[in-house]
Amino acid sequence: MTYCVGMMLDRGLVFMSDSRSNGGMDYVSTFKKLYSWKLSDDRLITILCSGNLGTTQAVINDLDERVNGKNLSGDGLLQCKTMFQVAKIVARSLKETIQEARGPEIDGNSTFDATLILGGQILGERPRLFQIYPEGNFIEASETSPFFQIGETKYGRPILLRGFDRGMSFSHSMKLMLVSFDSTMKTNLTVSPPFHYQLFPCDQIDNAVEGIISEDDPNLKMISEGWGDALKQALDQLPNFVIPGSQSDLFEALRSSHNE
Amino acid sequence: MTYCVGMMLDRGLVFMSDSRSNGGMDYVSTFKKLYSWKLSDDRLITILCSGNLGTTQAVINDLDERVNGKNLSGDGLLQCKTMFQVAKIVARSLKETIQEARGPEIDGNSTFDATLILGGQILGERPRLFQIYPEGNFIEASETSPFFQIGETKYGRPILLRGFDRGMSFSHSMKLMLVSFDSTMKTNLTVSPPFHYQLFPCDQIDNAVEGIISEDDPNLKMISEGWGDALKQALDQLPNFVIPGSQSDLFEALRSSHNE
Repeated sequence: MTYCVGMMLDRGLVFMSDSRSNGGMDYVSTFKKLYSWKLSDDRLITILCSGNLGTTQAVINDLDERVNGKNLSGDGLLQCKTMFQVAKIVARSLKETIQEARGPEIDGNSTFDATLILGGQILGERPRLFQIYPEGNFIEASETSPFFQIGETKYGRPILLRGFDRGMSFSHSMKLMLVSFDSTMKTNLTVSPPFHYQLFPCDQIDNAVEGIISEDDPNLKMISEGWGDALKQALDQLPNFVIPGSQSDLFEALRSSHNE
Repeated sequence: MTYCVGMMLDRGLVFMSDSRSNGGMDYVSTFKKLYSWKLSDDRLITILCSGNLGTTQAVINDLDERVNGKNLSGDGLLQCKTMFQVAKIVARSLKETIQEARGPEIDGNSTFDATLILGGQILGERPRLFQIYPEGNFIEASETSPFFQIGETKYGRPILLRGFDRGMSFSHSMKLMLVSFDSTMKTNLTVSPPFHYQLFPCDQIDNAVEGIISEDDPNLKMISEGWGDALKQALDQLPNFVIPGSQSDLFEALRSSHNE
């Protein structure tokens, strides 16, 4: 399985991915799922991958060739004037790769399916963020849906919904990301560090920061342990649940309702 | 969809269920999913239901008849000497109901499947908690797995893993339950109040408390709103994520790495 998140903040884009790939519980390996191209000083394009590894690697290779000018069909990423045009190329590449792998006759989901998050900026436009589906269509992040998750999305979703704030700092967004990833890896063995991340401040192509968070990274340890304690404190601080009819303690309530 | 949790505490059992049933986005209704029988002063049996409503209602009706002595096959719940024997009857009823509905020839999952949580006590034994699968087999809670979830389990699981403590009070366990249910209903439209709950203190059949938490219940509102604030505070309190190589603020890091 996989867990990847792309966020659109006021100050830029944030990406994070895990790196576990499994073809069964006993066939587990580590693969990078975050790819980024900085092109001709005016564009940065980043992709997060989930799904069939053969499919996503083929798409990444295809995009690499479109960057290097070796692509035979002629649609290069350097010629795109907007991120929407980039999204169309990526989506078509994904759809064609899946169709080729599974053949024309099968409908519905296939084992070759994959889903991508695409983000980046071509100077002149604002940064943009897309989620691209195996069918080759895609949606764009907006003020009301400012982040996308792909892969094993459910465990880490509640904290994103509660904690996300478009105005937050990159440092705060990394805390939120790591809490969401920590919640996911605590409950699903197939999501695991190292985590790859990228922080991309608006209009500053040269200032994008990429990094890797390993299992023993002090940031991750601090946040994972700190989060357990912080959650327990948060629970303690909530007002006690009051059983209807009782004054304070439940056992008092139990006894008095029993005596009535 | 459904969300139900059964917990085994040192001081007893706690059950909670949502009450939404849907046969599609435009066919939503409210059904109780928590059933309990207090029998002959020495046994309390409680069941939480998820899955096909026809199946679970048939199983509950079958168990009702086994309580009332109207069951034709003769296996009554009053004759059971242990909760293990109760679990075997419930599991067989579930398996046979599903098999009858789907016919003998189909393998694998069917739309008639359902999963149950069964808990309770027959005096002389400790309280026990089981999860019963559509195949008719079941597992029992233990010190290492002291709670079961059925239905839409993922959103509410991280907080249970972090917050569960066998020694906690009933009042604290209700806070934990409501936070887990709140996280689930915030992210999944098909899980919704009213929530039914039961608190059952060990060896005190007569002191079991059942209740309903409606959408506008002050406990739920307080916990839902308080939890949002508490999570934000918890995030704020975590140490800032430090980008490797930077001293403090990310943007400083970005600038200095850009200037180097």
